[in-house]
Amino acid sequence: MLSRGVFIVLEGLDGSGKSTQAERLTDHLRRQGHGVRAVEEPGGTPEGEALREVLLREDLTPLAELFLYEASRNQLVRRVIRPALEQGEVVVCQRYDYSTVAYQGYGRGLSLELIERLNEAATEGVRPDVVLFLDVPAEEGLRRLRDERRPDRIEDEGVRFLRRVERGYRELLRRCPEMVRIDATRPPEEVFEEIRHAVENALHGR
Amino acid sequence: MLSRGVFIVLEGLDGSGKSTQAERLTDHLRRQGHGVRAVEEPGGTPEGEALREVLLREDLTPLAELFLYEASRNQLVRRVIRPALEQGEVVVCQRYDYSTVAYQGYGRGLSLELIERLNEAATEGVRPDVVLFLDVPAEEGLRRLRDERRPDRIEDEGVRFLRRVERGYRELLRRCPEMVRIDATRPPEEVFEEIRHAVENALHGR
Repeated sequence: MLSRGVFIVLEGLDGSGKSTQAERLTDHLRRQGHGVRAVEEPGGTPEGEALREVLLREDLTPLAELFLYEASRNQLVRRVIRPALEQGEVVVCQRYDYSTVAYQGYGRGLSLELIERLNEAATEGVRPDVVLFLDVPAEEGLRRLRDERRPDRIEDEGVRFLRRVERGYRELLRRCPEMVRIDATRPPEEVFEEIRHAVENALHGR
Repeated sequence: MLSRGVFIVLEGLDGSGKSTQAERLTDHLRRQGHGVRAVEEPGGTPEGEALREVLLREDLTPLAELFLYEASRNQLVRRVIRPALEQGEVVVCQRYDYSTVAYQGYGRGLSLELIERLNEAATEGVRPDVVLFLDVPAEEGLRRLRDERRPDRIEDEGVRFLRRVERGYRELLRRCPEMVRIDATRPPEEVFEEIRHAVENALHGR
């Protein structure tokens, strides 16, 4: 057992396979005997779920959208992620503040400096041990979502928006040593093997 | 008629009489022939109303609370206040970013620097022509609320919290030339006379 928890984040465009891989990883770690807390942004707390509804359904300004993601994040960090890590659990989280830089910063063009200030406040110093960036081109992510018939507000905004988000992720990849690129265009089994490998490295490197 | 709108904010502790006076002022200005848009923070837009529900009912972190107020504010500024001012209307708004400094900053102890940064972003340069600070001591505001039996999460936190908020308002009063102190311990009719006078000064000073 671990003496303190491990914080694993999955990042990537819509359609990159985060949910599928987070589920596999959670099952895998549980079979290994770890206590695992699986969460997802936005949401993961009663307040976050209420905000998720507002985020998906309403006519929000880009700035209001940013503030709601940060509110949901602080709620998740304080009420779920930090307590779980303090109890030695492994936290598997779909999306974290990298998404805000990529989507609200590069995608919607909000101030990167403001976003960094808010991310810093909302996360309260709780940083992931490893970030698995599931890399698929914007066109491929969008195609997969269309096949699954899961349109929503963000996913409808089209490939140009997602190309800007993709560029944001590539900038983050250059800057953040904790971020590991996973080629997510391959079959799910192969993607998972790479994830398993990256997570084992992160667990042993501690 | 005015060539561009006038933005009037009412501020003060819970129980200071903002709603009563905002209603009187709105009626008065309408009788004078002005187009008046009466709004209230948080809320005033469908998204803001949804957030108001989250703000009043849930177990929010102080930081999440701050982000939700700012989200509601940006929504109100972009969708209601700025368009109304551009059409030459008078906007009468209960609470604005002064409340966030007083309640979240002085009351809850969040970083004043962070709050200023967020206020600046959320208001997008839309500043009131006059701010009517309805001044009642914390004890008096609380007593009035208890008489009206209107307890809610914020109002239950008691007099110590409200004393810190009161101190915040007094700091703002020192710093902000647009803020006018109104002695709100007097009967509502007298309070309104003072408000009417302050608003007329603001309208003519333009």
